[in-house]
Amino acid sequence: MPARKTIPRSKDDDYSELWARNRRDFVVAQTGAQLNHVGHYSALDSELQGNIENFLGVAQVPIGIAGPLLVNGEYAQGEFFVPLATTEGTLVASYNRGMKILHQAGGVKTTVSDDAMQRAPVFIFPSAREARQFGLWVSAHFDEIKVHADATTRTGKLKGIEQYSASRFQFLRFDYTTGDAAGQNMVGKATMAACEWIDSHYPGIEQYYLESNFATDKKTSLVNMLHTRGKRVTAEATIPKQLIEGLAHASVDEVFRIRQVATMGSMLSGANNNGAHSANAIAAVFIATGQDVANVAESSAAIAHAEITANGDYYYSVTLPSLIVASHGGGTALATQSECLKMLGCFGSDKVKKLAEIIAATVLCGELSLGGAIVAREWVSSHERLGRNR
Amino acid sequence: MPARKTIPRSKDDDYSELWARNRRDFVVAQTGAQLNHVGHYSALDSELQGNIENFLGVAQVPIGIAGPLLVNGEYAQGEFFVPLATTEGTLVASYNRGMKILHQAGGVKTTVSDDAMQRAPVFIFPSAREARQFGLWVSAHFDEIKVHADATTRTGKLKGIEQYSASRFQFLRFDYTTGDAAGQNMVGKATMAACEWIDSHYPGIEQYYLESNFATDKKTSLVNMLHTRGKRVTAEATIPKQLIEGLAHASVDEVFRIRQVATMGSMLSGANNNGAHSANAIAAVFIATGQDVANVAESSAAIAHAEITANGDYYYSVTLPSLIVASHGGGTALATQSECLKMLGCFGSDKVKKLAEIIAATVLCGELSLGGAIVAREWVSSHERLGRNR
Amino acid sequence: MPARKTIPRSKDDDYSELWARNRRDFVVAQTGAQLNHVGHYSALDSELQGNIENFLGVAQVPIGIAGPLLVNGEYAQGEFFVPLATTEGTLVASYNRGMKILHQAGGVKTTVSDDAMQRAPVFIFPSAREARQFGLWVSAHFDEIKVHADATTRTGKLKGIEQYSASRFQFLRFDYTTGDAAGQNMVGKATMAACEWIDSHYPGIEQYYLESNFATDKKTSLVNMLHTRGKRVTAEATIPKQLIEGLAHASVDEVFRIRQVATMGSMLSGANNNGAHSANAIAAVFIATGQDVANVAESSAAIAHAEITANGDYYYSVTLPSLIVASHGGGTALATQSECLKMLGCFGSDKVKKLAEIIAATVLCGELSLGGAIVAREWVSSHERLGRNR
Amino acid sequence: MPARKTIPRSKDDDYSELWARNRRDFVVAQTGAQLNHVGHYSALDSELQGNIENFLGVAQVPIGIAGPLLVNGEYAQGEFFVPLATTEGTLVASYNRGMKILHQAGGVKTTVSDDAMQRAPVFIFPSAREARQFGLWVSAHFDEIKVHADATTRTGKLKGIEQYSASRFQFLRFDYTTGDAAGQNMVGKATMAACEWIDSHYPGIEQYYLESNFATDKKTSLVNMLHTRGKRVTAEATIPKQLIEGLAHASVDEVFRIRQVATMGSMLSGANNNGAHSANAIAAVFIATGQDVANVAESSAAIAHAEITANGDYYYSVTLPSLIVASHGGGTALATQSECLKMLGCFGSDKVKKLAEIIAATVLCGELSLGGAIVAREWVSSHERLGRNR
Repeated sequence: MPARKTIPRSKDDDYSELWARNRRDFVVAQTGAQLNHVGHYSALDSELQGNIENFLGVAQVPIGIAGPLLVNGEYAQGEFFVPLATTEGTLVASYNRGMKILHQAGGVKTTVSDDAMQRAPVFIFPSAREARQFGLWVSAHFDEIKVHADATTRTGKLKGIEQYSASRFQFLRFDYTTGDAAGQNMVGKATMAACEWIDSHYPGIEQYYLESNFATDKKTSLVNMLHTRGKRVTAEATIPKQLIEGLAHASVDEVFRIRQVATMGSMLSGANNNGAHSANAIAAVFIATGQDVANVAESSAAIAHAEITANGDYYYSVTLPSLIVASHGGGTALATQSECLKMLGCFGSDKVKKLAEIIAATVLCGELSLGGAIVAREWVSSHERLGRNR
Repeated sequence: MPARKTIPRSKDDDYSELWARNRRDFVVAQTGAQLNHVGHYSALDSELQGNIENFLGVAQVPIGIAGPLLVNGEYAQGEFFVPLATTEGTLVASYNRGMKILHQAGGVKTTVSDDAMQRAPVFIFPSAREARQFGLWVSAHFDEIKVHADATTRTGKLKGIEQYSASRFQFLRFDYTTGDAAGQNMVGKATMAACEWIDSHYPGIEQYYLESNFATDKKTSLVNMLHTRGKRVTAEATIPKQLIEGLAHASVDEVFRIRQVATMGSMLSGANNNGAHSANAIAAVFIATGQDVANVAESSAAIAHAEITANGDYYYSVTLPSLIVASHGGGTALATQSECLKMLGCFGSDKVKKLAEIIAATVLCGELSLGGAIVAREWVSSHERLGRNR
Repeated sequence: MPARKTIPRSKDDDYSELWARNRRDFVVAQTGAQLNHVGHYSALDSELQGNIENFLGVAQVPIGIAGPLLVNGEYAQGEFFVPLATTEGTLVASYNRGMKILHQAGGVKTTVSDDAMQRAPVFIFPSAREARQFGLWVSAHFDEIKVHADATTRTGKLKGIEQYSASRFQFLRFDYTTGDAAGQNMVGKATMAACEWIDSHYPGIEQYYLESNFATDKKTSLVNMLHTRGKRVTAEATIPKQLIEGLAHASVDEVFRIRQVATMGSMLSGANNNGAHSANAIAAVFIATGQDVANVAESSAAIAHAEITANGDYYYSVTLPSLIVASHGGGTALATQSECLKMLGCFGSDKVKKLAEIIAATVLCGELSLGGAIVAREWVSSHERLGRNR
Repeated sequence: MPARKTIPRSKDDDYSELWARNRRDFVVAQTGAQLNHVGHYSALDSELQGNIENFLGVAQVPIGIAGPLLVNGEYAQGEFFVPLATTEGTLVASYNRGMKILHQAGGVKTTVSDDAMQRAPVFIFPSAREARQFGLWVSAHFDEIKVHADATTRTGKLKGIEQYSASRFQFLRFDYTTGDAAGQNMVGKATMAACEWIDSHYPGIEQYYLESNFATDKKTSLVNMLHTRGKRVTAEATIPKQLIEGLAHASVDEVFRIRQVATMGSMLSGANNNGAHSANAIAAVFIATGQDVANVAESSAAIAHAEITANGDYYYSVTLPSLIVASHGGGTALATQSECLKMLGCFGSDKVKKLAEIIAATVLCGELSLGGAIVAREWVSSHERLGRNR
């Protein structure tokens, strides 16, 4: 084994074009790969600090546009053109088709029902008895804990502390609102301050850790689906029978039945989602708009629900219980990312719930379109026509 | 409501720069957003067909490089520099730190244990009794079904058909190998051919659907964790006690204990992952290398396992049971994406398992680094130092 | 602390009435409780050996009879009177009501779709790579493993070995048929023989354990719901619209809707059952007929499914994926237990699937009855009328 | 099909010996079974009303005694002799062995951490937006809702209302304390009163149902494990190294490792329990003491946790998050059942937490004993020696 090579880094202007090129040259020398494209970007150096280390260039992910998506939300109202960054052929076309049908159906109603971001420390005690006592103390001292948590952040607000226990462990799940940011860092900092205050005021703590996998950050979980992580947002529409029949070349009853079967499939397979492919829309909008794409893990959880109305139309809804989005902070201010947010009118302050509504509405369009394609048996042929011959 | 505006499209050269610009102009006109950056890209027109529709430009996602990652795999052997496309500050630095420690520990051993891609149709019968009979018939006619499935694809091979039943439904989960492609389209086409053959040869099927949410495509599930979707890959290392203590400013016992607590947290919270943040590495490599990023939903499932060895060192492993990767097809041939694959020596034929090994090794480095930061209470301060002040 | 008192035991005739009384006297002396009833039983001494240790008497659990239950099974055909041992007031009345309605509807169709009992050892290796190799070897040597497993038992037959892996562990889930016995002991013995043979023929096993919580014995799990533990049995019926309306004082649509809502409730709450109360029938029949009542844990898992038929009637089914029953062995030959089995024509050889069908049919009756009571808002008032004023 | 036979019933003295015999005679006539034992019981007629309908006799379930169990609880203190009603040979002996070891280790510490019984109605609205508004109203009107719920019961107290939402449904999970009763009926009645009040005071409710499968009654679920159903009780002990080695013929390290492997097995198999066989103790005590045995479904959920202490001893705990018990009401006052409760000093008022502690301590003894048997490879041989040759 030769001596370990070190990636070139500059203490002073590491984000400059010079040092990005130095690193590209290093990678070329080490790996033999030619790098003609990753160095081709339009971001300004100064924007990158805080978003990346060892920067050497960019991934260029193609964006297709779908729309107009008609949304009747509380924050998003009217028509939107949705940028979808993906490399899966057919995807933009499929969402676009769903948007067209739901436009004809009068648009998608959207509702943000809850809003919470978590950090979940665990406190360890000699036995379950002391853990229980501690839990009571935490509830009684919520106001003081909140003071110390909230003092660390301008926008984060501690809403409450869920408590869970097992063995001699007391798990605390701190719930915050975080303004227009996704807020994972904000709540980490706030909860650390809270824990330090707790640790110095409550005697007998054997040990604590700032995170216990109860957040559950970057991991889908039932606790997130039950208690919300990020935004809990529902998109709903009632689609006239004729539109469904035109889409699926089948009756509303048949379209409904595949929903039932798919729900049973999800339940039996232990899936976090009884819908079809929420992850597609979510990943594509996340990449385009500078969201933390790793959050697709938890954001893609979904609860789909369909009913046949009294007059034979098709009510369809999807609830995203843990959609993590930001209109500020993270990658939202980067060059292409901010442009995509601006296309949606979702850049900056007081825009995060609007973005959540648009994403949920987009997801519903995709659920409808793919469900219709499965019933109509057009799913494979569409991919044949529009996708790569993979 | 004004008349619905239609996105400009060309029948003939829709992927040309002209029509991309037409669409950007349309979006600018419709939304008022200025688009100075999304149109800045180096991809050739011809490459995009099959990966996107209504193309208007690209998302530029910053790439940082981490490494060298030392891998002792069956396919990946030696040092690698891993491109991570992310906008989460601290992330590249954290993975890089883990890579350094595991390099000192002698590298990461990787093993691909299984390989499977699914499509899961459901067949509906008048009652459970006919469903059961059908299941027996499918088992007895596997060879013929395989002939019809395999005939549709050059690289896909039907390995077997899992069967699940409830009520009057028989769920079939077709398992394929798909060569260097992720294979979702391939297996859709093959399974459709199989279903059509079945439908024309087995009497009494009331209805069937090509997908039943048992695949479970773009959704994490226990069935995928049990039976593999994509690659099942394990990364392992034994880390000398001194390295652990240096990392965590704490004993191996304490580092081990947080693993135990986190496992309990995951179990109780109903998470699909008892590790820390596999989704971070996976999403970042997926974006960089042209993978289908929506698959982060299922690919981020993970089983972490730690032990203290007889001489007090720390054995650590992570198993990714449903990592969906490709070295061919999908977005892998695009401009920056193929460059990133080439950096890893993972572009093209017979490279997909190598890529799976590199990703799993990268995940393990991140698990180690973040776990150490939590124990050392450096987690928040690192984000303060390197991340955006979110 | 006084010296630990020892429960009186006899080496020679520990199951005699004398020693049962000795133990009752001991308990009376130790605890001050008067024991006038537990010593009142009709079991013969000799029958108890193998079913209990430190015998001192019996629990007298009241049995109510429900029926006639009309079953159109493959093994159970015609009318049955079902003994339900319970102390929950209203329960027998509720099942009885469901049986009456489903009798009017033409009876319950039942189907046993699968039959399997498990033991799940784990084999540990230095790394995932050796674990994978071992897995391939096990598949290649199934026939020899089967010879050694089957040699230990007259009725048990090894059907197959499921394999699951994570880290450096290879989990093997041995599936057997076990004749008319529940078979947990039989498969333990057979699998131990298989493991010893494997251990002596495969080099490099670091350690193995006969059970790994993959069976999953006395624990409900998704693996049991997917792959069957005990019998997988479905009960189905199509109930004329008029009967539903009479039961629920509501339309079929409304009865259907509560099924949908309950399925969503189960999915979100992470339940192993989207039905109402399968555990009630199962526990009551299990106690009456000498089943291992601890198996209610896994046997109570259920998948309910309802549809509105084309002519407006109500199709209703329940699938019990892991119903563990015996018509031979265990407590089935005890005094009252064998009588209850005989009431059902289910005592002894070749009767176990008949018993499974009767239980599933009973469960369906209870699902219908309770569902109707919830819609009709009679649920609480029934318990007021028939239950204890608890 | 012959005319449906009706089970004989009396309007006036249905619980008399006469009518029990009439029903036995009827069953004998209908089925041909001889009933010499089920009619052999000592319960008084009057006691049965409210616990059973169509009474015809009893199941005699053998009881073995295990002990002394040494408990250091808050409610249970000292030595107990535990009646276990079971037909599984080896079971009493195995629990007894565990009790002996934990007696030597100084006994079992027990803690009841939480106490709650639920009923979970669902309210349906035209869209998610109205559902959200309703949820806020419920929170704001908790005090009034509590007045109406609590007015229906002497001992039940509404503690709080959890809220969950999806689509246009608002799920309310009412949490009560219920004194010494299990309380399922009590909370049904109270919640019905609350719902009626809500329904008459909140306009715009489309429909509501008293239960939505969020309780989750007679069904194990993650929501019950997270938020407690019945009692949340932990049993813990630290067992000296020598005792572990004597039990398992193996090192503490090895005993610990099988815990780790079993936890992984449970996690991967999707079990509600990472321990061994809590259901055995729970079912056996439930039958003996007149608990609602169907509740084994949810009561058997368990979280096991082990650690090796600094000086090499073995810390072991089990938490039962949803143990449903009563010392009053239900079947607790029946003849043999009340005697068994009295053996434990758990009959009547203010005894329910004591009973919960004893059961949890018993479970821990069984976990230790079976774990030791698996490591020592004595598990199968014990069943050979003590069990039926099944």
